[in-house]
Amino acid sequence: MPQTLTIRRPDDFHCHVRQGDMMRQVLPFSTDIFGRVLLMPNTDPAILTGAAAKRYLKEAYDIIGDLLVPSRAVLIPTIKITPRTTPATIRAAKSAGVSHAKLYPDGVTTNSEYGVTDMRSLADVYATMQEVEMALLLHGEMPGVFVLDRESLFLGEVLWLSDSFTELRITLEHITTLEAVDVVNQLPDNVGATITVHHLMLTLDDVIGDKLMPHHFCKPVAKTEDDRQALIAAATSGPSKFFLGTDSAPHDAATKECSAGAAGIFSAPNAMPLLAQLFEEEDSLDQLQDFASENGAHFYGLPLNDDTITLVRETEEQVTRWRGIEVFTGTRPMTWRHQTLEEERANV
Amino acid sequence: MPQTLTIRRPDDFHCHVRQGDMMRQVLPFSTDIFGRVLLMPNTDPAILTGAAAKRYLKEAYDIIGDLLVPSRAVLIPTIKITPRTTPATIRAAKSAGVSHAKLYPDGVTTNSEYGVTDMRSLADVYATMQEVEMALLLHGEMPGVFVLDRESLFLGEVLWLSDSFTELRITLEHITTLEAVDVVNQLPDNVGATITVHHLMLTLDDVIGDKLMPHHFCKPVAKTEDDRQALIAAATSGPSKFFLGTDSAPHDAATKECSAGAAGIFSAPNAMPLLAQLFEEEDSLDQLQDFASENGAHFYGLPLNDDTITLVRETEEQVTRWRGIEVFTGTRPMTWRHQTLEEERANV
Repeated sequence: MPQTLTIRRPDDFHCHVRQGDMMRQVLPFSTDIFGRVLLMPNTDPAILTGAAAKRYLKEAYDIIGDLLVPSRAVLIPTIKITPRTTPATIRAAKSAGVSHAKLYPDGVTTNSEYGVTDMRSLADVYATMQEVEMALLLHGEMPGVFVLDRESLFLGEVLWLSDSFTELRITLEHITTLEAVDVVNQLPDNVGATITVHHLMLTLDDVIGDKLMPHHFCKPVAKTEDDRQALIAAATSGPSKFFLGTDSAPHDAATKECSAGAAGIFSAPNAMPLLAQLFEEEDSLDQLQDFASENGAHFYGLPLNDDTITLVRETEEQVTRWRGIEVFTGTRPMTWRHQTLEEERANV
Repeated sequence: MPQTLTIRRPDDFHCHVRQGDMMRQVLPFSTDIFGRVLLMPNTDPAILTGAAAKRYLKEAYDIIGDLLVPSRAVLIPTIKITPRTTPATIRAAKSAGVSHAKLYPDGVTTNSEYGVTDMRSLADVYATMQEVEMALLLHGEMPGVFVLDRESLFLGEVLWLSDSFTELRITLEHITTLEAVDVVNQLPDNVGATITVHHLMLTLDDVIGDKLMPHHFCKPVAKTEDDRQALIAAATSGPSKFFLGTDSAPHDAATKECSAGAAGIFSAPNAMPLLAQLFEEEDSLDQLQDFASENGAHFYGLPLNDDTITLVRETEEQVTRWRGIEVFTGTRPMTWRHQTLEEERANV
């Protein structure tokens, strides 16, 4: 049984680092671990333009700059597509350095108000994104239908996008269903999908099966064991279109443990140890680097990170709560942790 | 549009009134409204014998006795069936005046630990219940399977019970699925079912579809809109085997709004106004008395209550929280309330 695990430094292609004090709390967890962190635009107010994305990026890099230990992490900004987004918005954002835009159907998750109500009315936006090579990131849920059917019923939109914009890079984010795995597998290479750590570990039983568990509640909500097994098969399939996007989404405990709890799971600190645990249980530790460090870079045409991270086998001293924010620890005792800075220095 | 609604006094054939201070808080809501209140035995410790049921009944009647306004409500005690229940337990309980016994599969809801793990091993208990005419109340969920399948997969046990004990009075409690409605409809007259107010008004979308809603969380969890429509059809079907059991289940808000929220919805104060609203929306106000005041009495062979209650049309002044306990108010503005004591006196 290996006591350490060293892999190419991974990327997190879906992360919420919030704003202000919250960003200051949570951003270092991501930048210490991941080579690239793709930052979601559903802040308040949302990031709608290239100029706003540049301001947000500066806020984040200023926090990293303040840290005692410098990080080489690259932050990837995004803009949010709304019904008012135009081809000119896209061109200006691309000129400002934005390479990814996120589409939320209206009302499907935290801060997704004023999202898109008629996806197909934005064909000129997608065409422009295709032309300027900006990737389309999809929160793939159909609003207004039964909660467990939302992702499956959204897949028709993915098929339409894939058929209509054959050169557009399309990412179906945080997939949760067997049907989504099948559709992504069947579509051409320009369509990929991110998978979170928590959707590889949870089912709906972990949310509402016993007590009501707000810290296991996210959108899309975790589905059945068959769905989870399909996600595990996709994540452990080696070189493929499935890659890590943690959707790490911190909320103050008071926002979760209340009469109307917010959706979102804060997984960044434990994401890689939990993945190592899961891949090891699946006898697929060899595939972890593909899923976490290579498939996403290949999909987006980015260079691979050229350094590594090391995990250490450890069953104690877990991070479970950080300054009022519950940290996801999976559903069973954790078996790996990150190497400490002291350990890293001793090895170098 | 009628401004008042007077019906035969209803019964609540499934209610949790807890113990001690909590009982003192919640019991009067039920005894003010219902002619009979059937008290669940999953207290802590659980009520396992006729002697314990008599003590519990005394605690409850003492509280009623302390009230300034005397109530004529009849409280119906129950015992909990466990793997250690014997035919002698049943006979002794029956001699002590217990006419209903509740079976919880192990671990399916609040205080259901040490429930039954192998239902069919208790055939001698059911046979004795049949002989002494004690009704069997079932929390109809199969443990250890996917949360949304638990009720459907339990129906095989109901079929077995119905086939094996053709004279045993069997009540499938708080049904939530179209399948349960169908099975109860198809089985002989000795099998009936209770339906709660909240399951007539909620689906899973109201629990996890937007924010996470602990005050809409109960066991069995609310299912789909098709299921809800089947329950409404059963409840509004006039004289039938479907009758009211609110499963009113108060918890301190702190027990619901936390990192592991308890299951249970406190509906007793608003149960009848909400039913009037729903039945009116369904153009079935004529069937309300069957569902709430007659079907259950007929099923258990009890006399009908000989007085009435009156509701008044009212869209304001709703009870939403009572001393730290959230009160169920449905999913839209309420349109009825109970007549006040002053109004009642003025009319008499």
